[in-house]
Amino acid sequence: MSDITLASEITVEEIQHAGDDAMIAHAAMVSTRGGAAHVPDPPEEKISGLIRFLMANRHGTPFEHGSLTVRVHAPIKVWREWHRHRVGWSYNEESGRYKDLEPVFYVPPRERPMIRPDGFKSARPAFDFADKDQYELVRMHLEAGYRTAYLHYQAMLEMGVDRGLARDVLGVGIYSACYCTANPRGIMAFLSLRTYEPGAKFPSRPLHEIEVAARKLETIFASHWPVTHKEFCENGRVAP
Amino acid sequence: MSDITLASEITVEEIQHAGDDAMIAHAAMVSTRGGAAHVPDPPEEKISGLIRFLMANRHGTPFEHGSLTVRVHAPIKVWREWHRHRVGWSYNEESGRYKDLEPVFYVPPRERPMIRPDGFKSARPAFDFADKDQYELVRMHLEAGYRTAYLHYQAMLEMGVDRGLARDVLGVGIYSACYCTANPRGIMAFLSLRTYEPGAKFPSRPLHEIEVAARKLETIFASHWPVTHKEFCENGRVAP
Amino acid sequence: MSDITLASEITVEEIQHAGDDAMIAHAAMVSTRGGAAHVPDPPEEKISGLIRFLMANRHGTPFEHGSLTVRVHAPIKVWREWHRHRVGWSYNEESGRYKDLEPVFYVPPRERPMIRPDGFKSARPAFDFADKDQYELVRMHLEAGYRTAYLHYQAMLEMGVDRGLARDVLGVGIYSACYCTANPRGIMAFLSLRTYEPGAKFPSRPLHEIEVAARKLETIFASHWPVTHKEFCENGRVAP
Amino acid sequence: MSDITLASEITVEEIQHAGDDAMIAHAAMVSTRGGAAHVPDPPEEKISGLIRFLMANRHGTPFEHGSLTVRVHAPIKVWREWHRHRVGWSYNEESGRYKDLEPVFYVPPRERPMIRPDGFKSARPAFDFADKDQYELVRMHLEAGYRTAYLHYQAMLEMGVDRGLARDVLGVGIYSACYCTANPRGIMAFLSLRTYEPGAKFPSRPLHEIEVAARKLETIFASHWPVTHKEFCENGRVAP
Repeated sequence: MSDITLASEITVEEIQHAGDDAMIAHAAMVSTRGGAAHVPDPPEEKISGLIRFLMANRHGTPFEHGSLTVRVHAPIKVWREWHRHRVGWSYNEESGRYKDLEPVFYVPPRERPMIRPDGFKSARPAFDFADKDQYELVRMHLEAGYRTAYLHYQAMLEMGVDRGLARDVLGVGIYSACYCTANPRGIMAFLSLRTYEPGAKFPSRPLHEIEVAARKLETIFASHWPVTHKEFCENGRVAP
Repeated sequence: MSDITLASEITVEEIQHAGDDAMIAHAAMVSTRGGAAHVPDPPEEKISGLIRFLMANRHGTPFEHGSLTVRVHAPIKVWREWHRHRVGWSYNEESGRYKDLEPVFYVPPRERPMIRPDGFKSARPAFDFADKDQYELVRMHLEAGYRTAYLHYQAMLEMGVDRGLARDVLGVGIYSACYCTANPRGIMAFLSLRTYEPGAKFPSRPLHEIEVAARKLETIFASHWPVTHKEFCENGRVAP
Repeated sequence: MSDITLASEITVEEIQHAGDDAMIAHAAMVSTRGGAAHVPDPPEEKISGLIRFLMANRHGTPFEHGSLTVRVHAPIKVWREWHRHRVGWSYNEESGRYKDLEPVFYVPPRERPMIRPDGFKSARPAFDFADKDQYELVRMHLEAGYRTAYLHYQAMLEMGVDRGLARDVLGVGIYSACYCTANPRGIMAFLSLRTYEPGAKFPSRPLHEIEVAARKLETIFASHWPVTHKEFCENGRVAP
Repeated sequence: MSDITLASEITVEEIQHAGDDAMIAHAAMVSTRGGAAHVPDPPEEKISGLIRFLMANRHGTPFEHGSLTVRVHAPIKVWREWHRHRVGWSYNEESGRYKDLEPVFYVPPRERPMIRPDGFKSARPAFDFADKDQYELVRMHLEAGYRTAYLHYQAMLEMGVDRGLARDVLGVGIYSACYCTANPRGIMAFLSLRTYEPGAKFPSRPLHEIEVAARKLETIFASHWPVTHKEFCENGRVAP
């Protein structure tokens, strides 16, 4: 029997992309330009000004003419939230029915805030850092729970039990891989809900682990659509 | 500390609905009728004939003018699949971040096929029944795994750990409640993938537990849209 | 040959609906309540408070558990804009291929602002009222154009020309009937873009005729979801 | 006053794309491969076999991990149909409110079938070719209708009338430009409905002009996803 692996990293790997800020400008400018043919890119300051206008006035559709595919390795609990983003997002994930799940389980890194403070409010969750003992205890509880569950899982697989049933015992901290494709508008809707920025127009308090993934996605997004990303931030991180 | 509860039932409770077969006919007939006003329902045989034609020719949009809301209590592993249905479906589910999860966990009923036969093929999964000993052993493995995990979960909650972290140890067999709203077209797309019918045009081999839910949903669906349901079945269960 | 009819009214007729404010509260409350069964409606003040919170914090999904179907008679130019609302909206419209189109054409009512003022800005369009002569002239131009086009249309139909080709000559002011079904979230997204309210957080300058339809839809919407509608308005008409 | 231009061509210009057949295979293979990292492309015959399997069994989601943006110049009547494709499609179109529309109008080419045969059936429309006189007459009717309408349009614009009102007189044969972005799954759903193939599993009888556009789109699509396109055709042109 193989033993379990504990991991704290959540990876977001860029796979492919199409589009840039200029493409968003082209899509927007067709409304007043028309004509039978695509034209060369407008100058940069025109692109910036137009994207700022679109963002401020919530003209969202031009931000759909692009695409980014990433491969993400994250605990199932992250997928539980991520897959609720239905519009402008596509997914293909590892299956617990068609393969034996690898025993890679999530434990929080030391710097993950995790202890409820006095006066904790569910509607606006924020956490303190664990002290060293608390942290070790949390790791121990998670590890022990994961390991026991995994032993039962393996035992059931050896009996020939349906993987789709045996996996019921495995915690939502187990890792799963997923390909995700989205357009810039969908990505911004995701970022606005899955990152915490005190200065945002509608601050959100996401689960720590999905925010880690969202921040990595945001870096990739900003590298391909720097103007769009900048205006998204300056506009209070409201998805257009 | 509270002990865990084992459950085998998956419930689908009707909450509200709008629409019927006649409404689908009205929506379809507007294409050739036009006019400034809604008219009385057509006779039943006209409704049947029209719905048969729409289904056979995959005219899907008329089947979107209706709505069914159900409340479902099912293991998380079922939600993992159900929530992948993005189009024509809406969801609100119990949160593992905002509440302590109740210790209700899924164990299969005696009649759930679960043992891989000789010559098992992943791409077309089918299972044998467990014998009595096998069944008891599976229940034991699940129960033991669930119980251990739940003890660790409780211990972490008592330490004041973020529920969104502590729950990582809980298996995907834990129950969760969700409100789901869909239109008839979305429901049929779901049924075509989440039920197994040997005579279907594209037979699907769904996870047992989502099929149990799908069958209950199908009964409610058929009660409100009997003609649509009948033609769906006679047309090889291909969603229009 | 039949002559044309001029019309200025745009009608929005309620056909069916499901859901109310309480249903939205139920869907939201499942996140912290869970449990195996639906429960009785919460008291009114709880519903109000909860909907206010959801709206202010842009928790949108609970507003998807409802449905409204309307039958709308409006010029094609209105459909050109309306059908761009893809999410949470379903449509079935009269066909120009499968039926001879009825010669009902739109002319603006006297009170429709229509003359560009000095200093007109495309990006924020607002219009002055026409004086009596201007108004008559506009009507005359529209009527003459519609009538000529319709004569050519009829002549082509009599030649046996494909309706889907003959109709190319008919102006986008011709009326067309459509069944539309949407959930409250989709309706609010539509209202936020298709009505002009100076006090809105993101004021929009819609086409006059789609705003007329939107206002009628809003009245029906407000009658079934009065609390949701009130909080939508008080929250700057931003769809959650 | 400018005169009108008659055009018969519908153009579909490729603007950008992401993805290929191998990417679809990667997305599908994650279900049985899992793991923390993207791997090199599988060999070609494996890609082919896998795509054939996905298509035959209607596993649609892997076909969403790609993107194609085209710029299309087509009559408004084509957009009236195209924009009804909501899922996996994004649009930005020329505006009749924010710009004066250019007087480019559609007339059918000589080879466009257009005369209803004896025994014509609306539900399965097919047309004969026009003879020379018929064709000239149709062109004359269209041209005359377009020209008259455009004169009225220009007269209203000169009066300072709202473009969004003046354009009501312009026929749906006027050209409009639009950027469209879709993924392979959305493209196949479009092609299955907007092309006529007698051998298709669900033969469709589309409007001639949207089929012209669809065929050009299909050529671009096939150039980037040749295996997917081949299997789509061999599988009866049913979108997965």
